[in-house]
Amino acid sequence: MITDPLADLPTLEDIEDAAARLQGITVHTPLLRNEALDAVVGAPVWIKPETLQRTGSFKMRGAWNRISRILEADRPRGVVAFSSGNHAQGVAESANILGLKATIVMPADAPRAKIEAARGRGATVRLYDRVKESREGIAAEIAAQTGATTIRPFDDAWIMAGQGTAGLEAATDAKRKGVAFGSLICNASGGGLLSGIATAFEALSPETEVWAAEPAGHDDTIRSLAAGRIVSNDPGYRSIADALLTPEPGVLPFEVHKRRLKGGFAATNDELLDAMSFAFHHLKLVVEPGGACSLAVLLNNRAHFAARGPVLIILSGGNVDADMFTQAIRRTPPA
Amino acid sequence: MITDPLADLPTLEDIEDAAARLQGITVHTPLLRNEALDAVVGAPVWIKPETLQRTGSFKMRGAWNRISRILEADRPRGVVAFSSGNHAQGVAESANILGLKATIVMPADAPRAKIEAARGRGATVRLYDRVKESREGIAAEIAAQTGATTIRPFDDAWIMAGQGTAGLEAATDAKRKGVAFGSLICNASGGGLLSGIATAFEALSPETEVWAAEPAGHDDTIRSLAAGRIVSNDPGYRSIADALLTPEPGVLPFEVHKRRLKGGFAATNDELLDAMSFAFHHLKLVVEPGGACSLAVLLNNRAHFAARGPVLIILSGGNVDADMFTQAIRRTPPA
Repeated sequence: MITDPLADLPTLEDIEDAAARLQGITVHTPLLRNEALDAVVGAPVWIKPETLQRTGSFKMRGAWNRISRILEADRPRGVVAFSSGNHAQGVAESANILGLKATIVMPADAPRAKIEAARGRGATVRLYDRVKESREGIAAEIAAQTGATTIRPFDDAWIMAGQGTAGLEAATDAKRKGVAFGSLICNASGGGLLSGIATAFEALSPETEVWAAEPAGHDDTIRSLAAGRIVSNDPGYRSIADALLTPEPGVLPFEVHKRRLKGGFAATNDELLDAMSFAFHHLKLVVEPGGACSLAVLLNNRAHFAARGPVLIILSGGNVDADMFTQAIRRTPPA
Repeated sequence: MITDPLADLPTLEDIEDAAARLQGITVHTPLLRNEALDAVVGAPVWIKPETLQRTGSFKMRGAWNRISRILEADRPRGVVAFSSGNHAQGVAESANILGLKATIVMPADAPRAKIEAARGRGATVRLYDRVKESREGIAAEIAAQTGATTIRPFDDAWIMAGQGTAGLEAATDAKRKGVAFGSLICNASGGGLLSGIATAFEALSPETEVWAAEPAGHDDTIRSLAAGRIVSNDPGYRSIADALLTPEPGVLPFEVHKRRLKGGFAATNDELLDAMSFAFHHLKLVVEPGGACSLAVLLNNRAHFAARGPVLIILSGGNVDADMFTQAIRRTPPA
């Protein structure tokens, strides 16, 4: 069991413990099939739509698992977090349920939908300039001034264990259906979700290959795996996948990645928009650019994944502005 | 058990029999919750997203239950159906799986997405003019010429039993979760889905009130219930809910409606677009205008339904063009 969340790696036991805590709070998202996707890929594909999770992304899982553990004595000082948007929703919603004050440091250019949603959940939003300011610095200052507990987005074993409950659900549901995934594709940024799911599958379905999906130009996880050490992205933003723009993999997640990942693939902006269009026209799901990365990777590497048998893809989030979504769905979906 | 599908009414046994036939063909759609919807309604709401069903609507359930019963001797002559779009997909997909030729009579002004999807499923589409031509007449002529089996959209006990499997799933899943719905809201046009679900709930959850949702100006089910006999809509089309524009309730469905329905509510075009926007922004689901009617009715009659406890809404379809969807999601969702 986790004793130091900033140093330990989560185990299946920690993920099961998180799942018990999430009961009645989060959605046990289903495993979906879609005949059009099966047809274009040439293999059975199972979809885990974390778009349908409370707050519109998987981030609620980790945030609740972390925030619900804050000791009574520390609760009056609230929580602080930095986030491009989805972690913000999970933190704000969890704090709101528990009656804790939440301050979220968000980039000024984050999707309006995400900024407004955090405010709607009762959080105080502190906007910052992605180029000129350090979000870590601002959050640290707020924590020092107020005594608020900092809720890290991924480098925390409780967060990783919380996100891993998505993998526990998928592996358990698949077993009940008699399905064995040859591979799974999961979006990667800091790596909280990917490492949590990889840990669950290591215990429950070790034969399933785990692959990372990243935005082109932000393929730090893929390059770090190849280098055997953490490698950062060049500064600047080249992708519309606002949820996946962390500079490099987290230290704790990368320990799991090194042990469990087979590799990864990157998707361009055009490929992300095409995948969103496919999700609209065929899956009938609203998926944000970063959330659609796994689908984009699958659609652009069909033979690679079809050769491995049944595929699981995680659609990690659906918090997208109407403008961006409109741009995507006007495109003819990949056939 | 059904002996004459054009005269008998389905029972729970028929619905269970249909469910067994649908195994491995259709999706057991989940029951979803959404915190934003609960909050605005003031009661727990459960969502049955038939948008995620194979072919993008519930229609696959009835079509498969009917078409898979066609005798071997009759199969070479294929099937014929008339449909504004969703029944077309269910018929085309079912026929395609079984290797039967399908001819679908569709209005020339049906959403492009629906016409193209039927063709994509291998069907021959015969377009007709909604004002000048009779779809029933064209379909009857094709059936007479080719010997094809006519697949009615709702006035057929096997079709009703097939659609009723959505109710069987919802009632069974709710029981497993320990939920008892005070009311359910289901979209109504010919009434195949509504009567099928009402039949399942009559047996499995008789205390749940069943309410119809209809487009304003096409509230024939509501007016027929009030009159105690089938009443037609005025000719012409006043609603964007292309899936719900049948002139009057079917004869067989209306027998169930009279026995089981508490009443109904109508939704205007603005209310349908607002509901689609709510589904995009909060539920992260792609819902077509007709499919969103139950949600629109709930959002516009919150106190009525909240007073009855937990609510079940059926989102019946998600086959919508990008243009119509864009128009909807630019609207600020109801708060």
